[in-house]
Amino acid sequence: MDYGDKALIRHKQLRGKLAVELKDKLDTKEKLSIYYTPGVGAVSSHIAKNPKEARNYTWLSNCVAVVSDGSAVLGLGDIGPYGALPVMEGKCMLFKHFAGIDAVPIILDAHSADEIVATVKAIAPSFGGINLEDIAAPICFEVEERLKAHLNIPVFHDDQHGTAIVVLAGLINAAKVTGRDLKSSRIVVVGVGAAGVAIIKLLNTYASPEILAVDSRGIISSGRKDINSEKSKLLEFTNKEDMDGSLEDAIKGADIFIGVSKAGLLTSDMTKTMAKDPIVFAMANPVPEIMPEIAKNSGVSVIATGRSDFPNQVNNALVFPGIFRGALDNHVTKITDEHKIAVAEAIASLVERPTTEMIVPNVLDDRLVPSVAKVII
Amino acid sequence: MDYGDKALIRHKQLRGKLAVELKDKLDTKEKLSIYYTPGVGAVSSHIAKNPKEARNYTWLSNCVAVVSDGSAVLGLGDIGPYGALPVMEGKCMLFKHFAGIDAVPIILDAHSADEIVATVKAIAPSFGGINLEDIAAPICFEVEERLKAHLNIPVFHDDQHGTAIVVLAGLINAAKVTGRDLKSSRIVVVGVGAAGVAIIKLLNTYASPEILAVDSRGIISSGRKDINSEKSKLLEFTNKEDMDGSLEDAIKGADIFIGVSKAGLLTSDMTKTMAKDPIVFAMANPVPEIMPEIAKNSGVSVIATGRSDFPNQVNNALVFPGIFRGALDNHVTKITDEHKIAVAEAIASLVERPTTEMIVPNVLDDRLVPSVAKVII
Repeated sequence: MDYGDKALIRHKQLRGKLAVELKDKLDTKEKLSIYYTPGVGAVSSHIAKNPKEARNYTWLSNCVAVVSDGSAVLGLGDIGPYGALPVMEGKCMLFKHFAGIDAVPIILDAHSADEIVATVKAIAPSFGGINLEDIAAPICFEVEERLKAHLNIPVFHDDQHGTAIVVLAGLINAAKVTGRDLKSSRIVVVGVGAAGVAIIKLLNTYASPEILAVDSRGIISSGRKDINSEKSKLLEFTNKEDMDGSLEDAIKGADIFIGVSKAGLLTSDMTKTMAKDPIVFAMANPVPEIMPEIAKNSGVSVIATGRSDFPNQVNNALVFPGIFRGALDNHVTKITDEHKIAVAEAIASLVERPTTEMIVPNVLDDRLVPSVAKVII
Repeated sequence: MDYGDKALIRHKQLRGKLAVELKDKLDTKEKLSIYYTPGVGAVSSHIAKNPKEARNYTWLSNCVAVVSDGSAVLGLGDIGPYGALPVMEGKCMLFKHFAGIDAVPIILDAHSADEIVATVKAIAPSFGGINLEDIAAPICFEVEERLKAHLNIPVFHDDQHGTAIVVLAGLINAAKVTGRDLKSSRIVVVGVGAAGVAIIKLLNTYASPEILAVDSRGIISSGRKDINSEKSKLLEFTNKEDMDGSLEDAIKGADIFIGVSKAGLLTSDMTKTMAKDPIVFAMANPVPEIMPEIAKNSGVSVIATGRSDFPNQVNNALVFPGIFRGALDNHVTKITDEHKIAVAEAIASLVERPTTEMIVPNVLDDRLVPSVAKVII
């Protein structure tokens, strides 16, 4: 039986994966009078006078919303809010298990940027942070920017920044293993949606390497008339030679391939045209752009995927629990580029002696959340 | 130390009263693969094809949102969403403790009917039911009507209907105790906000008694130019003689006084002008319209309040846990007047021999939730 069949059976048995728990039993009339009326009135009055005190008297300081409109769920695409709910419940499990954070899945019957922004702004007082999830590009960029500008709690689109941070963490160690300097590396990023754009931006901020962005129609260049504004903005710092062409053209001589695209896109022949000891992050899910064995046999030095059954799993769960733990505990309301880089470096440093088979820590490593949280200051 | 002081200390110790709990531990890589990727993809695909299946595979079938904009919180008024949060967390505790329902507090930075309706519609897929709470009149009426019309999950404004149902339950038994027929009783309802309007409507539907509605400016009559449309609509079936005047005028000869107004409004002298063996429900919180001892000494036969430290506590917690338990379990999407009356009768019938000191069951009575839930069909 595969994981899908097991998941169907288990989800139906449990009827979902989350429940609400009470921090104290309501087993006496005294407790009813303290936790509800009349006692709670004093707490409400106190907070009404100074709303910032809410975090000291309610679950706000440990509570995050996992918000999705269901428009870009896993590899399944736009499957709507109900289809997204099991994934969001799963994400909430990860928040609780890894970081002790109480996370609530909020799925939206709202799809334009305006509707999503208005809804999240309206419910924001209920939460200490907002984790945006599986919202399609390019709307996701506008939604996050507007919410960050408006709200004074952390807003983090994990598909963008969680992915970008863990990719950077992995690359820092892969560069060490292969004796590279990222600053002078040539990097091809394939897939220019939420994750691809964020990876490109963060790599540029960190090391200004030479980057080519490639989508399903080829290299992003000034001659392309079919690209959205988010992709055109990438031309400010990618493809400085304004090269046209396909992935085959882009990959020649590249040091690093980063795929957030689709299964099987990278062939053995293509990897053979890359620089010596190349690095390949093939993160399409569930089937990567190239299978690790084929990559290895074609001369790739470090191969990473999104999968837990191969070495070097590039997994957002290395990042987001610690980011929110730190933001909540340290009252940090904006996750900046400096934070992202500090987190990537913190994660990379947990691997004391990186090897081709071990560039990122295991997701079950107990040191992860505290190491990440402490740089969110 | 009073309940308010104890509540401040205890809420700060606990930092809120709710937490998210996982229905299974995430302690193996196998479970990660079943509850999250890749296994969860099969569950999402299954639901995407048939969204109604969401209730069988997620926490929807046991999950309710407790939604407030903080505009009419307890006796405190418009204290805003943060001030409302401890009350909503408390309400969620009651949902869990009494009915095993996972309830999530959603406080809104949204105040017009349009904004509240748009927000709740947008987040509605996340929940199996919506409990509206502490939203001021007259907006609360429009918000509930529009949401009920649009959503296919139960929407219930507890301040209106929870109160109205428990008042009717209490009156059914108080009428027995005093040998009255509600159909021929003369009832004065003081306070014409969310609760008052709902009480008047439900009493009219149940028994068409003679009702006078009284607000802070006097009896609602056709001559009043200062009343909103919700109050004018009450003239279709209240005050048939179109009487003008004050509470003093209204109360003369009345069988029943129902107060959802403010402390001390009903004097001993006024109760002495009521019919023989009158019934007084003095539900202002925390201080009732008349204290039970004074009422008793002035000839009142049955006195009920909202307080747990006097007999006959008219408490919404007798109602809403069972209503939602029934609606969720029996797939009921609209709570109708027939449901409300059936619930009131079910609650009243749990008191086998009503007396002046015992017209409603104790909130801790184990029979309550199943008795209420089974009539929501």
